[in-house]
Amino acid sequence: MLIEPKNISWFPELLPEERIIELEIFDTIRRCYECAGFVSVETPAVERLEVLTSKGGDDSEIYALHRLNGEQEDAKLGLHFDLTVPIARYVAQHYSQLSFPFRRYQIQKIWRGERPQAGRAREFTQADIDIVADGELPLFAHVEVVAVIHSVFRALGFDTYVMRINNRKILRGFFESLEIPEDTIPHVVRTVDKVDKIGLSKLEQELQTLLASQMIVSSILEYLGLRSLSNSEKLAYLEAIRHPLLAQGVIELREVYERLIQMGVEERFLSIDPAIARGLDYYTGTIFETFDVDNVSFGSLASGGAYADLASHFIDRSLPGVGGSIGVTRLLQLFLQSGKRTPVAATPTRVLITRVQEEYIDRYVALLSGFRDASIPAEIVLSASQKIGKQIAYADKKGIPYVLIAGEDEFAKNVVAIKKLKTGETREFALGSDMSEWLF
Amino acid sequence: MLIEPKNISWFPELLPEERIIELEIFDTIRRCYECAGFVSVETPAVERLEVLTSKGGDDSEIYALHRLNGEQEDAKLGLHFDLTVPIARYVAQHYSQLSFPFRRYQIQKIWRGERPQAGRAREFTQADIDIVADGELPLFAHVEVVAVIHSVFRALGFDTYVMRINNRKILRGFFESLEIPEDTIPHVVRTVDKVDKIGLSKLEQELQTLLASQMIVSSILEYLGLRSLSNSEKLAYLEAIRHPLLAQGVIELREVYERLIQMGVEERFLSIDPAIARGLDYYTGTIFETFDVDNVSFGSLASGGAYADLASHFIDRSLPGVGGSIGVTRLLQLFLQSGKRTPVAATPTRVLITRVQEEYIDRYVALLSGFRDASIPAEIVLSASQKIGKQIAYADKKGIPYVLIAGEDEFAKNVVAIKKLKTGETREFALGSDMSEWLF
Repeated sequence: MLIEPKNISWFPELLPEERIIELEIFDTIRRCYECAGFVSVETPAVERLEVLTSKGGDDSEIYALHRLNGEQEDAKLGLHFDLTVPIARYVAQHYSQLSFPFRRYQIQKIWRGERPQAGRAREFTQADIDIVADGELPLFAHVEVVAVIHSVFRALGFDTYVMRINNRKILRGFFESLEIPEDTIPHVVRTVDKVDKIGLSKLEQELQTLLASQMIVSSILEYLGLRSLSNSEKLAYLEAIRHPLLAQGVIELREVYERLIQMGVEERFLSIDPAIARGLDYYTGTIFETFDVDNVSFGSLASGGAYADLASHFIDRSLPGVGGSIGVTRLLQLFLQSGKRTPVAATPTRVLITRVQEEYIDRYVALLSGFRDASIPAEIVLSASQKIGKQIAYADKKGIPYVLIAGEDEFAKNVVAIKKLKTGETREFALGSDMSEWLF
Repeated sequence: MLIEPKNISWFPELLPEERIIELEIFDTIRRCYECAGFVSVETPAVERLEVLTSKGGDDSEIYALHRLNGEQEDAKLGLHFDLTVPIARYVAQHYSQLSFPFRRYQIQKIWRGERPQAGRAREFTQADIDIVADGELPLFAHVEVVAVIHSVFRALGFDTYVMRINNRKILRGFFESLEIPEDTIPHVVRTVDKVDKIGLSKLEQELQTLLASQMIVSSILEYLGLRSLSNSEKLAYLEAIRHPLLAQGVIELREVYERLIQMGVEERFLSIDPAIARGLDYYTGTIFETFDVDNVSFGSLASGGAYADLASHFIDRSLPGVGGSIGVTRLLQLFLQSGKRTPVAATPTRVLITRVQEEYIDRYVALLSGFRDASIPAEIVLSASQKIGKQIAYADKKGIPYVLIAGEDEFAKNVVAIKKLKTGETREFALGSDMSEWLF
């Protein structure tokens, strides 16, 4: 009896032609991350539950492990659900062997047993990047993390995104300047953070239930009106508000913003957004999130921020940092669904060596080795007895762009013929000559 | 209270300087696999238990999943313990969307809850490669899979390995030619397969308990004596034995062997070994395993073979194939422990831009962007107020090979100074000139 061959829902898998696009995205991310001086780290997929739940909060999404034979493990284990907890554990564990500021990237799968929603998966890949300092974190670290995310999107040719950027000190300072009571501020932040979901009039209602004074509500709405201004108008507006914490936040935001522009980030990709908060407790400085303006419903594609302490649950040292994360699985889905990327081939092979006259098999194999030695991905037709039409159909179906055809006539002239399948154009090359330019 | 930051035993993790070496190995494998026309496939780490246990046998090594909140999943799930079962499921599931012969590689972590032994891990990475045919598998596919494993080892500069190669038809045919009863053959194969572990005299004893005739035992021992001959002597010896199945195996083995030599595999890396069997049921044709002759105790670093049917549990079609697997985690441990690879740097950064005079910060940032635009991994000192000695110490500790030093004197001359830390040698470069040759 056959078992139905099915992967599990919400654990996505790709066809080869899609996987090639995913690899191209991974390669681009890695190249950009490394070019900015970040080193790869990989942590095991499995951590002790004690580590996974160290930050507290909702642990219902964790996949725990048990042995099928019922044997007890020494420790209770689970799959990591983000890369932040594992890197906190890693930095604390290997503290004495790392150099700070520690700049690492980490591209790995994570698992979350959450209730399935559109655009979500239970297994997906994140590409995280962080700079962690031992003691004090220079502001330039914020610039570096934000700049590298932009460099990835630029290298991917992704030009419809906008990164919304803010500084937590501005938001908190502004609410303090309105003399909102300390214990009400978190509720106000959470409400304001929802503005894009609920709209301005619903927001006003919710603020009115939180805040006694309509004047304060109006000030907040005016503040949100800022969002329609240009980046420099926003900075100028914010600089006019007198409040020490807010002023510190604005100085930081301007410095980060201007350095990004200096480093080649185009202004159209940056939107200073005084409303975004990105959760409440963790972030303390620069914060950002990134959307495709044509596909906002996909949610944030890359987000992050600066935090006061990475690993306080694991080590008695102050390790402030700044980090970001690109949601690679989501970005790939966006690219495929929006047509920003279209699958073209189900193989890396550039040229298929056909077997038109079997007596030349030794020559065909020599040609095969020649291509590979020149780093040109090549295949030979595996079967000895196929009609040439079937051989070419194989190349066509897989998206192999070129086929090499050589028989008695060609070898008599010491040439081979290479046909570009898309156009039908055929060129002859002298045996042993460099064909790489034509094949790429 | 702090949680002890510890990864789990047998779930290895690497320091950054070791991870760089692991990545280099992954990159090399991928480059060689793709150059031979294999496409990447990745399957979810999680499969239904029904799929994982489809091959039968011992399932006690499987890590099954459960939700921490006790919520029941629709299906019982577990982590894959090899890449063979998942690719069988994948090929059967996507059969109509794949082109055959299907050539895929798959580099992924797998998990096995086995009893810890030296050199083993519970989470490790394999780099699998297979050619799967729909109907009939041409012998050249065997050549391709074996050749690509050699190309990886050559590209890694690994020159102390030997691949032992055999054909299951030879072993079985030889035992048939001795008229060993059909149901005894599997026991004899298993015993002969152990010869390197137990030695010849213990082997003789075990064979004597299995086989009534001392003449047959002597013939087997003579056959094993073959192993001291040269490859061509072995082939000649085998060709002299008259038995149809064995003869077929020898024809295949000679063809594979000679093609490998033609494709540039040096004879010293190949050892025709009539004793190896690689388990009993699965393989039907070419089989191979690969050892470091200086470190045989590490076990096989790459092994595989040809099989009659990939996915008979999932699909009612004959899908014969040939595959191999490189044990990347084991290979890395071998390289590190034997000194074949030595960590040199904990960062990809080639050049650190120092901040000797803070008034030039804009120029330093412009230099930083310049390096990165030229694809030269570069960092700037993040903090504004460090002594130059401390800045250089950071580069030294991380293994950054070059530091850029530029202040009033240099900028007055429109140059920057770049110092190679290892030798102390300093060169001046005109601003905007190409420094890439010096930096790599």
